[in-house]
Amino acid sequence: MLQLEREYTDLVHSERVLLGPGPSGVDPRVLRVMAAPLLGHLDPEFLQLMDETGELLRYVFQTENDLTLPMSGTGSAGMDTVLSNLLEPGDKVIVGVCGYFGRRMVDIAHRCGAQVKVIEGEWGRIIEPEQVEDALGDMSAAKLVGLVHAETSTGILQPLKEIAAIAHRHGALLVADCVTSLGGAPLKLDEWGVDAAYSGTQKCLSCPPGLSPISFNEEARKVLNSRRTEVPSWYLDLTMIERYWGKERFYHHTAPISMVYALREALRIVAEEGLEARWKRHDLNARAFCAGIRGLGLKPFAQPEYLLPSLITVGIPNGVEDGAVRQFLLQEYGIEIGGGLGPVQGQIWRVGLMGANSHRKNVTLALAALASALKEQGFRATVEEGLAAADAVYASQEDV
Amino acid sequence: MLQLEREYTDLVHSERVLLGPGPSGVDPRVLRVMAAPLLGHLDPEFLQLMDETGELLRYVFQTENDLTLPMSGTGSAGMDTVLSNLLEPGDKVIVGVCGYFGRRMVDIAHRCGAQVKVIEGEWGRIIEPEQVEDALGDMSAAKLVGLVHAETSTGILQPLKEIAAIAHRHGALLVADCVTSLGGAPLKLDEWGVDAAYSGTQKCLSCPPGLSPISFNEEARKVLNSRRTEVPSWYLDLTMIERYWGKERFYHHTAPISMVYALREALRIVAEEGLEARWKRHDLNARAFCAGIRGLGLKPFAQPEYLLPSLITVGIPNGVEDGAVRQFLLQEYGIEIGGGLGPVQGQIWRVGLMGANSHRKNVTLALAALASALKEQGFRATVEEGLAAADAVYASQEDV
Repeated sequence: MLQLEREYTDLVHSERVLLGPGPSGVDPRVLRVMAAPLLGHLDPEFLQLMDETGELLRYVFQTENDLTLPMSGTGSAGMDTVLSNLLEPGDKVIVGVCGYFGRRMVDIAHRCGAQVKVIEGEWGRIIEPEQVEDALGDMSAAKLVGLVHAETSTGILQPLKEIAAIAHRHGALLVADCVTSLGGAPLKLDEWGVDAAYSGTQKCLSCPPGLSPISFNEEARKVLNSRRTEVPSWYLDLTMIERYWGKERFYHHTAPISMVYALREALRIVAEEGLEARWKRHDLNARAFCAGIRGLGLKPFAQPEYLLPSLITVGIPNGVEDGAVRQFLLQEYGIEIGGGLGPVQGQIWRVGLMGANSHRKNVTLALAALASALKEQGFRATVEEGLAAADAVYASQEDV
Repeated sequence: MLQLEREYTDLVHSERVLLGPGPSGVDPRVLRVMAAPLLGHLDPEFLQLMDETGELLRYVFQTENDLTLPMSGTGSAGMDTVLSNLLEPGDKVIVGVCGYFGRRMVDIAHRCGAQVKVIEGEWGRIIEPEQVEDALGDMSAAKLVGLVHAETSTGILQPLKEIAAIAHRHGALLVADCVTSLGGAPLKLDEWGVDAAYSGTQKCLSCPPGLSPISFNEEARKVLNSRRTEVPSWYLDLTMIERYWGKERFYHHTAPISMVYALREALRIVAEEGLEARWKRHDLNARAFCAGIRGLGLKPFAQPEYLLPSLITVGIPNGVEDGAVRQFLLQEYGIEIGGGLGPVQGQIWRVGLMGANSHRKNVTLALAALASALKEQGFRATVEEGLAAADAVYASQEDV
């Protein structure tokens, strides 16, 4: 018998303020239901909780789509699910890439055997409707257009409504990555005409990572149901999973019970606040933080008209060392912020103000702590101006 | 805006004794860590917890395999991961099918584009080494042999050591489904020569569903690293995931933090008890339950020499209605047991005594409650003999 060579302590960990690109801080109510004893995955009481979770998900997605459910994996499982269920070898696909997650969509579409036309955008800017129109003209009979609604790598919020209309005019579906927008930024699947979307639980829903909500409208469902080939991944095959989440209750895999408890509770909290109030709160705190960043003498990275309210990107000033600042924040303050991915690594920071964490206390704390970290690096941030600029945004809001 | 049409209550659910095929009851210590606040998935403290989880997993798998980690999905994600990472289109595969989960391996192997030779076994019996030898003779150059170590649909425990040697002699890998054996029945990957294995957290580890531990030895890893084609599913692609769990810490997807906390705690509990003691406990309670079943006048379904100690299958007597008995147990006792899958639906019950639930109190309770349910159905179970037979097993054990 192989034996263990050491002992393992009780779970002990430092307290963190999670202001990175996710996971975000989780509401104590959600943490509490995680500790509830389990029901079986076919227990009538659990099936009832699944139904309720589906209803609540339809509300946050603003859709009446029947096929709306959480996949049993983290956010990227949702991307993989949506693309690999809609695409078959030889299909033509257009993907807008102006960040890391658009690039990931291309990777997955290639694995599905699709022909992929990439609309190359600038990191930190959106994809313009004309670019999509042109791409659809160039590539005839594209099956779908894939866009990232909330590009977590750059901090932009991509408008979708106009592009949905363009895609439909060309007979293509619109697929949207809503991982960092669901519950934190305006998103209306039905009104905008988004045909399929996916998200994650660990961002603006303030729920631990582990589930990936997806939604397919009837057009997307028709594509799914008329596949010529099987979905390559058994685990992500929606043609079977919809039979478990639907009326049939056909056993597919053991659902992650505790995560469904948590998601349901997180969605209840969203419903209690109200989606529109939640969107406004995210918007307000993001604007205050951006004003504060400018006040500190730093520059937001993303295109100002399309700021993602749940994740703000900040340019790293010349001479300041990315890793040293993040390590200082973690060690001295217990604050996690994110670094840049891919081509913007070392050039930007990513600050998440998501779900429960989108709060004035975190805006002020993050600005003050960042100023302190920058001082260590010899960059003199103007902390008074930074905090005053944020305060001014809150003050003007109160007048409204 | 679409609005919700109703309110959603606090999470309320009945207390259950989970004696079905999984999920099993979860230790309160594991439930408590599920409620711990989150660390980020790249936080140095979380990376340390990942390392420790890997070490503990190696112990329960009895392996020194570097590539041992929990996939971010439930048990079936592990099956999909192992097969879709090892197989490529055109590969030859042999799968032993004597139950539902063997059939699922065939389905997944087909999706990988493999040529699959099925060894058809009888439900409730094992696959014999000679059958594997013959199949390997018939199908030259098979890449792997897939077997279910613990067939949760029939309750048999498949011996693997002799078959591993046979497979290796023919140049094939042995892949084993250990979903219902890991932590509950003897399993020694290295000593037996199992090349790749997968499991789930919600069975004998008494942890909620949501992760799927996998392990690849160097031979399996060579196959993975010499693929000609990409793994079809991005989410399950081990060539990337091993870079996150390995020294490089390359970001792939956001790990389900709370589930990793839970798995680590569940594995600590296994380590505190000791694997061998845990295997013995499962064996004792299973033998007592089987003796009790016979005492009641019922018949265990599985081949007696190869009883799976974590899940016992019981033949449903003529004239007794499957669904009515299970509903009675759930409503009157809060006890969940499982029904049969596929060809044995309506013919057997499946009673799980897994992890924390493998306990004398559950053996006695399940026997007495089953007798009571059968009485409702007009079947007169001899409850006194049933309980006495179980007691006798415990008594004889105490003498040892």
